Amino acid sequence: MTGIDDLPVRDELRGKSPYGAPQLDVPVRLNTNENPYPLPEPLVERIAERVREAARNLNRYPDRDAVELRTRLAEYLTKTSGHEVGRANVWAANGSNEVIQQLLQTFGGPGRTAIGFEPSYSMHGLIARGTGTGWISGPRNDDFTIDVAAAEKAIAENRPDVVFITTPNNPTGNAVSRETVVALYEAAQAAKPSMVVVDEAYVEFSHGDSLLPLLAGRPHLVISRTMSKAFGAAGLRLGYLAADPAVVDAVQLVRLPYHLSAVTQATALAALEHTDTLLGYVEQLKAERDRLVAELRAIGYEVTESDANFVQFGRFPDAHEAWRKILDRGVLVRDNGVPGWLRVTAGTPEENDAFLDAVRELKKEQNA
Amino acid sequence: MTGIDDLPVRDELRGKSPYGAPQLDVPVRLNTNENPYPLPEPLVERIAERVREAARNLNRYPDRDAVELRTRLAEYLTKTSGHEVGRANVWAANGSNEVIQQLLQTFGGPGRTAIGFEPSYSMHGLIARGTGTGWISGPRNDDFTIDVAAAEKAIAENRPDVVFITTPNNPTGNAVSRETVVALYEAAQAAKPSMVVVDEAYVEFSHGDSLLPLLAGRPHLVISRTMSKAFGAAGLRLGYLAADPAVVDAVQLVRLPYHLSAVTQATALAALEHTDTLLGYVEQLKAERDRLVAELRAIGYEVTESDANFVQFGRFPDAHEAWRKILDRGVLVRDNGVPGWLRVTAGTPEENDAFLDAVRELKKEQNA
Repeated sequence: MTGIDDLPVRDELRGKSPYGAPQLDVPVRLNTNENPYPLPEPLVERIAERVREAARNLNRYPDRDAVELRTRLAEYLTKTSGHEVGRANVWAANGSNEVIQQLLQTFGGPGRTAIGFEPSYSMHGLIARGTGTGWISGPRNDDFTIDVAAAEKAIAENRPDVVFITTPNNPTGNAVSRETVVALYEAAQAAKPSMVVVDEAYVEFSHGDSLLPLLAGRPHLVISRTMSKAFGAAGLRLGYLAADPAVVDAVQLVRLPYHLSAVTQATALAALEHTDTLLGYVEQLKAERDRLVAELRAIGYEVTESDANFVQFGRFPDAHEAWRKILDRGVLVRDNGVPGWLRVTAGTPEENDAFLDAVRELKKEQNA
Repeated sequence: MTGIDDLPVRDELRGKSPYGAPQLDVPVRLNTNENPYPLPEPLVERIAERVREAARNLNRYPDRDAVELRTRLAEYLTKTSGHEVGRANVWAANGSNEVIQQLLQTFGGPGRTAIGFEPSYSMHGLIARGTGTGWISGPRNDDFTIDVAAAEKAIAENRPDVVFITTPNNPTGNAVSRETVVALYEAAQAAKPSMVVVDEAYVEFSHGDSLLPLLAGRPHLVISRTMSKAFGAAGLRLGYLAADPAVVDAVQLVRLPYHLSAVTQATALAALEHTDTLLGYVEQLKAERDRLVAELRAIGYEVTESDANFVQFGRFPDAHEAWRKILDRGVLVRDNGVPGWLRVTAGTPEENDAFLDAVRELKKEQNA
């Protein structure tokens, strides 16, 4: 039988495994930062209606520039941030992963580098590898905040072409301050100039505000977003970015033509019609997230401050063993490979109770 | 105002334009090889039903491995080719463009090269550029067939990592013989060994058979397919490939996780339930394609043999001027930049009549 290593694959792919959390069939799944609330039934019906309409024209290619969708996304950003965003500032793709891939194809690629401050969203580095972009692992403090001076130094020394800042950060949960982002943007401009991509996938769950207003006067800044989390639509795969219109023009040089299907566009448009309801769920999840933080601390765990819909907790002498023991109690959390720490997604109150019961037992066992 | 050239984009993107045919509002659009028949209403309803079901779970990530969809695609391939294809042989992505991008990320990329025999589907070269793969333009005869000896020589000399063979070829319409594909596969193995990607996007319209049976015993062969044409679903963006299971394993090392949305999977599954009806339209289009070839020749045009749902015709002293004159008569065809030639998609009988009237007038004008 032929195996991967019998094929002429690129050397750096040899011995690698596909990215992805284990998809296990467990009663309580709190491992992939999904929104636990199914879409409300009126929205489900509206999606069916919009897709039916789109299907009547499915023999034709979709709107290549997704004009209506980008217009509605711009309106959503303007409304929720107070910063004026227009259609020309917005670009959309199949998940924020594809947005990031297009950005790295445009501004990174062979002979260029990107930096991220780790631990952070590991797909940034993996997509860098997939696009031939050199990857630089920048530093973080022990409490998972970014040390501005150390980060500035890493940027000045490495002169990366793309700088990733994830806020709220995944998997640690903490937000990066406005001042830090501004400082790193300045450092990146002084060094090269390079593009700065602020990944705000979880920003709707934050105690603070979006950094969208920073776009004013910063043509090398990009804010990336997703409908997977706050909109409860992980299955839709709709990511987007806001930036100077020139950035939107530039990524169109590398995007695959007609990359965004007519059914994806129709479904996203339906979801955007129901923004208020969906943001109501976000408020519930924020309260549950805060409860998780408080209860985990009460049980005796260390918890990283969270502005996301998930919480990083520890410390464990062996995080993977702790992951397995929580799984044995019917609750799937995430081992992101951060030594000593695990990550749990804020689920429904019932799911969170089940999780808290499991980690309470685990703590007793550890103390016994 | 900031322009693309004020951004730190990659040098090879400077001065480039996004790929894509002009999207003009014209009565008869025969320029992008779309299927002119809208999906039948029972299928539209089935899509709405399947998507409604998927939307109820949209807060969860989609099946990352698209198991059901790949199973159904494998059954379709087995049924229509007589060659046994299993789920492990099949991979799907957002359009065959994404399939090709994943193949080039796996087997091409920086420091590697790919060859195509041009004129052919220009996205092969563009995706090569987008993935940092060097592009080699291989030769074709004046009648647009592949000169086997010249192609073998180009492969032996350049030792490309990936060889593209498009059959039926786009934009010329002619098919490549089984013997030629076998010969080029052998040449590619002798030279490197390299992967051979046979792009069969239009094969359902062919007078001959698919080359799927060639997969037996050829682990470096990949057949790529799409639902855009024969399935009348250009708006769906569903491309797929058949190959040795090791190839499917390998592309999973570069695919973006959860790349294929739940709504795309649901819509494609619905369409596959209606295969027989959709292949009925293909038979009508083949008859119309043959009529276009015959009538164009009767009018006095040169026509390249076509096994696709489009026809290449000429010759024009100035193809772009001819394109414009046909457009002035309300019919949009495609100028693919092949000197002297234009391409017309087989539409409905009424659309084809309108096209034939336009080019009949054009011929009279030329002869006047």
